[in-house]
Amino acid sequence: MNTSILAPPESLLEAQKVRLAIREGYDRPTAGMANGLTQVNMISVPQDWAYDFLLYTQRNPQSCPVLDVIDAGQFQSRLIQDKQHDIRTDFPRYRIWEYGQCVDEVNDATSIWNNHPDLVTFLIGCSFSFESALLNAGIEVRHITDQRNVPMYLSNIPCASAGRISGNMVVSMRPIPAAQVSQAVQITAKMPRVHGAPVHIGDPKSLGIADLSKPDFGDFPRILDGEIPVFWACGVTPQAAVMRSKVPFAISHAPGYMLITDVPDQAWML
Amino acid sequence: MNTSILAPPESLLEAQKVRLAIREGYDRPTAGMANGLTQVNMISVPQDWAYDFLLYTQRNPQSCPVLDVIDAGQFQSRLIQDKQHDIRTDFPRYRIWEYGQCVDEVNDATSIWNNHPDLVTFLIGCSFSFESALLNAGIEVRHITDQRNVPMYLSNIPCASAGRISGNMVVSMRPIPAAQVSQAVQITAKMPRVHGAPVHIGDPKSLGIADLSKPDFGDFPRILDGEIPVFWACGVTPQAAVMRSKVPFAISHAPGYMLITDVPDQAWML
Repeated sequence: MNTSILAPPESLLEAQKVRLAIREGYDRPTAGMANGLTQVNMISVPQDWAYDFLLYTQRNPQSCPVLDVIDAGQFQSRLIQDKQHDIRTDFPRYRIWEYGQCVDEVNDATSIWNNHPDLVTFLIGCSFSFESALLNAGIEVRHITDQRNVPMYLSNIPCASAGRISGNMVVSMRPIPAAQVSQAVQITAKMPRVHGAPVHIGDPKSLGIADLSKPDFGDFPRILDGEIPVFWACGVTPQAAVMRSKVPFAISHAPGYMLITDVPDQAWML
Repeated sequence: MNTSILAPPESLLEAQKVRLAIREGYDRPTAGMANGLTQVNMISVPQDWAYDFLLYTQRNPQSCPVLDVIDAGQFQSRLIQDKQHDIRTDFPRYRIWEYGQCVDEVNDATSIWNNHPDLVTFLIGCSFSFESALLNAGIEVRHITDQRNVPMYLSNIPCASAGRISGNMVVSMRPIPAAQVSQAVQITAKMPRVHGAPVHIGDPKSLGIADLSKPDFGDFPRILDGEIPVFWACGVTPQAAVMRSKVPFAISHAPGYMLITDVPDQAWML
């Protein structure tokens, strides 16, 4: 992270306002909100699983770029200055996992965290961070245009396993006009801490995706003639690992329902 | 790591030859050897300490860029293709640590590892990787010219602590002519996985170094008129953490006595 790039005061106020709205019940995907500030994925696992999990992220940095690790019993992140924030309430929606099954979705996870005091929380970079850069280059981001959630798919790309953790990569997809795909690669390649360059361009079948219109997470995409589906590694990959590895207990964000931090997206630009 | 940049066959043969010579007793600092191939630092700690340690590296990526983690009971690295290699013998010299004290130095650590089967091993990037790039730009690397070990100092820069692990940053120093310092910054900034840009330029006192001629590790440097001491984060930082944190047991390389891998230095260039 380039710590010398700071968000302007009005952005920090906006981030604070959005986090407050979320805490008070706003329950929608966050793409395009508090534009220019880093949004993060989250996975929280028991201390006993934290080493395997951290090693998994070390071995799979493109899909699991860890931006912060929050110790058990702590609920604030180094990525947010505002001392009112709380990771138990400031994601719009959480998923609760038991032995690899999603058993519940909630908007406030405070009581659940209180019942599981040993959870270690990983905040992971999100491809939303390069969307402003795409927009600034005149590349439309379809799910922002359509105010929908980004489509995400469980791919056939295996991640490197670590201890008890294994799983395949989850990818996000953005349809890009053929003439702009190369530019989209070059722009996103400059931001490896928020998933970086695409992992796959075109031909969903060879990525193990039978039907683009049925994403595993998020919303059905609109794809126009002449557009190529472009796939990036996605911070929902840890949830796929939790499922496959049957982690006894975990809390994650709901895909697309992110935490907004105080760090400018630009801080991840090389 | 850019996995599409491969070492030429003759470099791989050279690396294999050097590792073999080391295994058979070569006992000198490795700067400048097997030119163009990545050399790595090493720290091996009990499984019970591995999470704290991995978290420490995550929170201090400039001084502790982890290039590979080798599970307990394993002695080969993903960074080396040659299936004959063994991390217990292929560093020229090892340090053995008990409760933060260096209790021994050995050239072959096989028996020690055998007595401590639960050690997890971290291989960490080394600033030697950017020295070819400096040389190619016409910037002299003094300790290579002089065939000495690079000088390293325990600085007053605190690292972010993690669990039971804390410590200050260790820095390596290279004297650079004033007219070339800016270029040295720009070149090394492109290689963040092997410590990247300098952390401090000139004025050793404000870095907590009272006397440049007395490095904490490595050899006394020769500094010419008009040269500025330039300091980079150093992969010996984990050893300072082992000392400060009184880790019950650890094995490290001896500073400057590195493992030579099969990965080209260029693979870490952005």
